[in-house]
Amino acid sequence: MSNGAQTRIARSRTKVLAAASDVFLREGYLAANMEQVASEAGVSIQTIYSHFKGKEALFLEVATHMAGGAASAVSNSVEMLPRDTSVEEWLTHFASQQLKIVMTPTLMQLRRMVIGEVGRFPQLGRTLYEAGPGRAIARLTTLLEHYSERGEIAITNPERAAKQFNWLLMGGPTTEVMHLGDGAIPTEPEMRTQVHETVAVFLAAYGRDHATGGRPDPQADAFGE
Amino acid sequence: MSNGAQTRIARSRTKVLAAASDVFLREGYLAANMEQVASEAGVSIQTIYSHFKGKEALFLEVATHMAGGAASAVSNSVEMLPRDTSVEEWLTHFASQQLKIVMTPTLMQLRRMVIGEVGRFPQLGRTLYEAGPGRAIARLTTLLEHYSERGEIAITNPERAAKQFNWLLMGGPTTEVMHLGDGAIPTEPEMRTQVHETVAVFLAAYGRDHATGGRPDPQADAFGE
Repeated sequence: MSNGAQTRIARSRTKVLAAASDVFLREGYLAANMEQVASEAGVSIQTIYSHFKGKEALFLEVATHMAGGAASAVSNSVEMLPRDTSVEEWLTHFASQQLKIVMTPTLMQLRRMVIGEVGRFPQLGRTLYEAGPGRAIARLTTLLEHYSERGEIAITNPERAAKQFNWLLMGGPTTEVMHLGDGAIPTEPEMRTQVHETVAVFLAAYGRDHATGGRPDPQADAFGE
Repeated sequence: MSNGAQTRIARSRTKVLAAASDVFLREGYLAANMEQVASEAGVSIQTIYSHFKGKEALFLEVATHMAGGAASAVSNSVEMLPRDTSVEEWLTHFASQQLKIVMTPTLMQLRRMVIGEVGRFPQLGRTLYEAGPGRAIARLTTLLEHYSERGEIAITNPERAAKQFNWLLMGGPTTEVMHLGDGAIPTEPEMRTQVHETVAVFLAAYGRDHATGGRPDPQADAFGE
């Protein structure tokens, strides 16, 4: 195949994906149909089927693409921090990025639609979970290990602590927006407050300053270790 | 109207609601239809319309009824605690009940369906939020005020702390079950671990024992109060 033909194919695929995102988010999975996607993409329905086997395959591709884009945006922003960043600065930056990138109408609509279709498309829910909270928790776990080795925090089970940080931060805002609609997306000042409160409670429980002050380790508390 | 007629009407309403719960949870809102509900309830379609204006009104009634039942079950169990219960015992009992009652396939399927339909039925999402997380957070706020006055915890903003406790506990399990399906509902030992970890982290941050040990108040940390 010539380069020109490859470029044309890639372009038409991109147009189909963009139109499909709009149609699925607007109509929901069940009500959306391939004719609408073809018409909005300005291609024939045969062109769509040359790229994707059918509605389910197209939906999976749209959802994976959107969720993956958000996860990469958080990771890239966080990779740019200097090496001597303190645990408090790192958590604050990570949490701010996480909230700002996840709390958007598009991602929240996608999440509602995927959750509503989990019975029919379990793979889709798994994909969205792994690209979203799963990836955030994995990233947090690695960094909590790092700061624990450096002695800035006292954590025996970094993955457990990473989940706690993640849900302290994201549990309220996401559940509210899932139920109450996009009007419940926090404003910028509300996001700053949420970030500060989360970091403060987390470090009050796990911060080294405090842990050396004779307080019991909350993880040891829980298991009598 | 005679008592006998009233009883018959109440009975037929209950049958319709039970059948509608099954049909909606199995088929989803869009695919469900009133003929199926009538057939499963063993009543005529006219009987359904004598109780409910239409599919939307019936769905609202089913969802409100189920969510309200779960919330009452948690409240009743918690009211039965003796007055001298410590904050740790109270939080442990409340959290155990909350997880056990919310983490059921029926409520989780209802929640997925309502979230998927929030664009079409915003009132439904609000009703479910208020009967679920909203009511749990209100109950926690009252009790944290009580224990703060008793001097067992050091909390300046009980509602904020109540939300933190609630999302530390529920954020992970509910988000996992929303995305990964009912197979992700925690087992009993997993629920016990989740409860212990949540109470331990919360009391490490807010417990009076620790707060008098010279640690800064995490809420003051966040706001420079």
